[in-house]
Amino acid sequence: MKRIEIDPALDLVLERVVDVPRELVWKAWTQPGHVKKWFTPAPWTTVECQIDLRPGGMFRTVMRSPEGQEHSVAGCYLEIVENERLVWTDALAPGFRPSQQPFFTAIITLESVGQGTRYTARGLHADPAAKRKHEEMGFVDGWGKALDQLVAVCKKM
Amino acid sequence: MKRIEIDPALDLVLERVVDVPRELVWKAWTQPGHVKKWFTPAPWTTVECQIDLRPGGMFRTVMRSPEGQEHSVAGCYLEIVENERLVWTDALAPGFRPSQQPFFTAIITLESVGQGTRYTARGLHADPAAKRKHEEMGFVDGWGKALDQLVAVCKKM
Repeated sequence: MKRIEIDPALDLVLERVVDVPRELVWKAWTQPGHVKKWFTPAPWTTVECQIDLRPGGMFRTVMRSPEGQEHSVAGCYLEIVENERLVWTDALAPGFRPSQQPFFTAIITLESVGQGTRYTARGLHADPAAKRKHEEMGFVDGWGKALDQLVAVCKKM
Repeated sequence: MKRIEIDPALDLVLERVVDVPRELVWKAWTQPGHVKKWFTPAPWTTVECQIDLRPGGMFRTVMRSPEGQEHSVAGCYLEIVENERLVWTDALAPGFRPSQQPFFTAIITLESVGQGTRYTARGLHADPAAKRKHEEMGFVDGWGKALDQLVAVCKKM
């Protein structure tokens, strides 16, 4: 993908400059041991993470609520440009098969800003209802809290 | 994608050896002028075709029935390995956005067999119902007739 076409009626965007280099942010996103430490806003935890970092490969996480309820998502990587852009979707299962519960595509982009990183997370949806649902689930707040956790992980690398 | 994982309960497969080289089959699949000549089994015709041959790029066709009814599909390319493998899906719109009417992912693989080509078209579905629907729509027969038309196009290149 060369261009990223965002439609305000369909998409959610979180953009922030963080004070860690993008190479570390990339590691935090692409190594299961790191992902488990930051991916789910506390008090939820990420108890499992599988990564097969290639187009068509699996990105699977199991998130656990404080009450012990587990939520598993097995998505599919679409585009991987090291230290720059990571794209995956739950609209496809691993191997590019259409999924039974399509919801959104995530595009993470990283740009160097001095010693830090401009971090942009985009959520693309099929229709305004799905966008609204994701908004009500707390996309911006949740992904923002997870980003705080990610930055803390990077600072300990 | 390295492996192609096929599930007989979910997928449809058409495999045939054709007597044209795979480089010509690839051209027939990736150049709009060629696609329009063979993509839809007669008496249906393909009246429009747009191709943006990159992951995330558009593969759009407009098919027309003998009665003049038009059916437009705008899918998204996922993987492009020249002369070897072409993957696209209608579960994503161009730009990797989840689509409103996900149905199947297509994987076309080409292998040289002497002067000819082992041509394999796979249709991957989310569930058995979607597979059955595609079967009833005539996947094997329709894609087989289209392949006959494709071979005829290659022979005139």
